[in-house]
Amino acid sequence: MSKIAVALVSGGLDSATALAIAQRAGYAVHALTFDYGQRHAIEIERARRICRGAGVASHRVAPLDLRWIGGSALTADIEPPKDRPLGAIAEGIPVTYVPARNTIFLAAALGLAETLGAFDIFLGVNALDYSGYPDCRPEFLAAFERLANLATKAGVEGAGQFRVHAPLLHLTKAEIIRQAVALGVDLGATHSCYDPTPAGRPCGRCDSCLLRAKGFAEAGLSDPAFGAD
Amino acid sequence: MSKIAVALVSGGLDSATALAIAQRAGYAVHALTFDYGQRHAIEIERARRICRGAGVASHRVAPLDLRWIGGSALTADIEPPKDRPLGAIAEGIPVTYVPARNTIFLAAALGLAETLGAFDIFLGVNALDYSGYPDCRPEFLAAFERLANLATKAGVEGAGQFRVHAPLLHLTKAEIIRQAVALGVDLGATHSCYDPTPAGRPCGRCDSCLLRAKGFAEAGLSDPAFGAD
Repeated sequence: MSKIAVALVSGGLDSATALAIAQRAGYAVHALTFDYGQRHAIEIERARRICRGAGVASHRVAPLDLRWIGGSALTADIEPPKDRPLGAIAEGIPVTYVPARNTIFLAAALGLAETLGAFDIFLGVNALDYSGYPDCRPEFLAAFERLANLATKAGVEGAGQFRVHAPLLHLTKAEIIRQAVALGVDLGATHSCYDPTPAGRPCGRCDSCLLRAKGFAEAGLSDPAFGAD
Repeated sequence: MSKIAVALVSGGLDSATALAIAQRAGYAVHALTFDYGQRHAIEIERARRICRGAGVASHRVAPLDLRWIGGSALTADIEPPKDRPLGAIAEGIPVTYVPARNTIFLAAALGLAETLGAFDIFLGVNALDYSGYPDCRPEFLAAFERLANLATKAGVEGAGQFRVHAPLLHLTKAEIIRQAVALGVDLGATHSCYDPTPAGRPCGRCDSCLLRAKGFAEAGLSDPAFGAD
């Protein structure tokens, strides 16, 4: 019997790479993308393209509207900052933080994993570039893993142990990009920008664009997303 | 400044009582009901009535569709069991278990609490009557509380400590009903049935109806829900 896993796929570079790592490790991956009211539907379109290209076992785009929670530039009408020096990006908790988002996403992924009979959940969180997000830290992920094994029928009945895999947790953006290239990830399909043009092209000026550009520069590669449609 | 809390209100007897306990303890309560694709919309209507009657600070009915997760009689097309002996209800994990539901609900409540600046979350879970639900156990709630303080900006920045209050955790149904009466909860507005008639009347035969009837009998009271519309 082949191993199965659930992977969160946002349409971004990191989660596409985490998905590829899961597949390389031998998992048949059921991909999960959340339609959470993000300002830019292009993320979901890119997630579909990435999953198709990667040959996942299944791909769900699940409705999980978080706009009613409020309080974030990603779901409410708050403008993400532009042109910040890279030093400033690493400081404090960004306005793009969505309260409890990764907790909610992991909980929903856990529900799906339990239904599918999977015990392994992959996600592309990273603790280096986004040290400001509390729910991207190793201690958060460890606490969630512990919770998962108490929260579920499968965990309680001892059918298996849930594991949260965050293979990019301690990598720099350049290291992630090198891994992605080595694994054949379609980087041109990935989308990182917080504030794309109406046609879906990256702005090149938000925190996420700046970190991505720095990563490609350090990896000595050019970003194929700038040639994409 | 008055204390504020978030309370999960399902439309059922237990969560209505937990809400009343929070209010009695001096909290201004922001109520949260999930529209998660439950088979019976009457629950949401009852939640609205309970919250109006209780004079909550606010009431949100949040879209949180869990049908895509599957695997439960409450959201999929699985018939809840009827006329089971009470001994059988306490055994095993019921088909009405929704994978990871309380984890997802608590995570979403945590997001709202953080946005509102609340650190206290009330819910009506009970470990006695529904010992089969893994996510109604004290160790689950303790693990979630620990997670909440790692998962959030507010938790990490030390503005406060999140607490999950489950005041009914160790009470019998009869004890809950006595508390509800003492606090003036509008029990006639509460809905417990897994399989109501099209007009919204309880079936009287599902696990939830049977436990409720036993509770009222033990408390020496008659159930006003059987006179409600």
